[in-house]
Amino acid sequence: MSDIRPVQWTADGLEIIDQTQLPFRFIVERHKEAESVARAIKDMKVRGAPAIGIAAAYGIALEAQQGADRQQLLTACQMMRQTRPTAVNLFAAMDRIEQAVREGKDVLAEAHAVAQEDLEADLRMAELGADLIPLNARALTICNTGALATGGYGTAYGILRKAYETGKLEIVYACETRPRLQGMRLTAWELARNGIPFRVISDGMAGWLMSKRMVDFVIAGADRIAANGDTANKIGTYSLATLAHAHGIPFYIAAPTTTIDSSTPDGNSIPIEERSSTEVTHIDNVQIAPDECPVWNPAFDVTPARLITAIVTEQAVCRPPYRFG
Amino acid sequence: MSDIRPVQWTADGLEIIDQTQLPFRFIVERHKEAESVARAIKDMKVRGAPAIGIAAAYGIALEAQQGADRQQLLTACQMMRQTRPTAVNLFAAMDRIEQAVREGKDVLAEAHAVAQEDLEADLRMAELGADLIPLNARALTICNTGALATGGYGTAYGILRKAYETGKLEIVYACETRPRLQGMRLTAWELARNGIPFRVISDGMAGWLMSKRMVDFVIAGADRIAANGDTANKIGTYSLATLAHAHGIPFYIAAPTTTIDSSTPDGNSIPIEERSSTEVTHIDNVQIAPDECPVWNPAFDVTPARLITAIVTEQAVCRPPYRFG
Repeated sequence: MSDIRPVQWTADGLEIIDQTQLPFRFIVERHKEAESVARAIKDMKVRGAPAIGIAAAYGIALEAQQGADRQQLLTACQMMRQTRPTAVNLFAAMDRIEQAVREGKDVLAEAHAVAQEDLEADLRMAELGADLIPLNARALTICNTGALATGGYGTAYGILRKAYETGKLEIVYACETRPRLQGMRLTAWELARNGIPFRVISDGMAGWLMSKRMVDFVIAGADRIAANGDTANKIGTYSLATLAHAHGIPFYIAAPTTTIDSSTPDGNSIPIEERSSTEVTHIDNVQIAPDECPVWNPAFDVTPARLITAIVTEQAVCRPPYRFG
Repeated sequence: MSDIRPVQWTADGLEIIDQTQLPFRFIVERHKEAESVARAIKDMKVRGAPAIGIAAAYGIALEAQQGADRQQLLTACQMMRQTRPTAVNLFAAMDRIEQAVREGKDVLAEAHAVAQEDLEADLRMAELGADLIPLNARALTICNTGALATGGYGTAYGILRKAYETGKLEIVYACETRPRLQGMRLTAWELARNGIPFRVISDGMAGWLMSKRMVDFVIAGADRIAANGDTANKIGTYSLATLAHAHGIPFYIAAPTTTIDSSTPDGNSIPIEERSSTEVTHIDNVQIAPDECPVWNPAFDVTPARLITAIVTEQAVCRPPYRFG
């Protein structure tokens, strides 16, 4: 079984799997310019904090390849920064690419480094994180943090994958993750592909699952980790962390250090993207709500550090009190 | 605006609104025999604990009208008892109809009494419950507890309706209530019809809503209340109660006394229905999950009495410790 690469540089352009079409259609789009990559990020064809950073970096490399000058490259970086506000990996990648541009370095080589380092970080994170998992463990996770969300292995999902390979993981419960169903559509697809036993639940079932003692730990990814450990992640993560705390169940975050934003002191300073109400009222362009149904649709929430048992990065398993940067 | 009656006796049969078609199609089916009513309950064309009890009672009245003998009527009651295991109103209604059959009483008159008493209970509950609501209150609710779920007014929803009429309610946040989306499809439809301001949220957003101090109380209905106050209700209710407790937000249950099962000592003894995985993997017969996606789909959960600030019935606002029966 070949590995999944959500974003893949080729001699003929940047290939991005259109994740809005999964699990039903496996469509790879070839991008030739930064603008269409920016649109793919905005439309969530590519999503997941690390994968967004990688796609954005390669998007600038496309422009460099076409001979854009320094100012055009920096303008393209600005455009990328406007796509999605919460995941900090995007901004970390753009900081790095901008620096390369200013120093006259090879942009493509820098983008390759962003991608390669992310993949390596995932593999180290998986080793470190898997050590936390007890025997016969039953995990609960949210959204998608697998190959599709990263350089090709996964953050929280990578730890689950490693724990399964080492015989410690019994089953993964995957929250379907409304509104966009990344848990049911992407994580379930990856779990089936990797042969890991799993069951999908509706998000509202998580508390009852914990109450029935059917889950031993909760693990999630992150879109931005503040200096004090407060963590923005997919909407619903905060509910899971609060429920885990109420049940005495460990709650872990897994993310590469590129997700840490030490310039953000705490969760209150993390911008939370609100997305279109049609994400809630429609699935695959099919209306499932009454006409003109008003909706609140924050894409992320912030889990306070006090609810996080440990944060796993490629460098260490960090325990509270967290002090990053 | 005419009132909604999910179940309506007519000279020409029992009319049941097919709630699986709402909010897109308002279809009323006319039933002539108990068996098709039982199927409508099983398929959730009629749902909501009180409405199920009413529909079942009228279903037996259909048989009586066609000249069924005592034994046939009692057999029909047995069939009704097999439709859904959790809502106790069904069993309370069948107890009552069986007694009427044994005593040779008019079954239709008894069914009318079940329906009428439920409506009256709702109206009294609304008065009692609305007194709990503070000024400018912002409510969070789950599933549908409105006219569609009851004799025609609502339990938790009836309290919200009353509080809005008396100028105390600012907005209702309605959990969409996966998997069957009764919150988004039925409650939103009723809220719009009644002109009450509202917004729908995905179930996973509830914790973040509370954390942002956007909600002052949570209110839900019930499918069965044990003698100690433990309450079975739509899956997701337990998560909401746990989250409300963690945020110091009052959590109320509203249900007629027919929902109280004093023969059940506590929540551990309440049978929880597990329904087909296709409820999670499909919406309106459209597949939204990967093929053969394994699912856990409990239809209800149990909220322990300690998390319930008050239980509102038509008789009183009950406070812990609860001792029913």
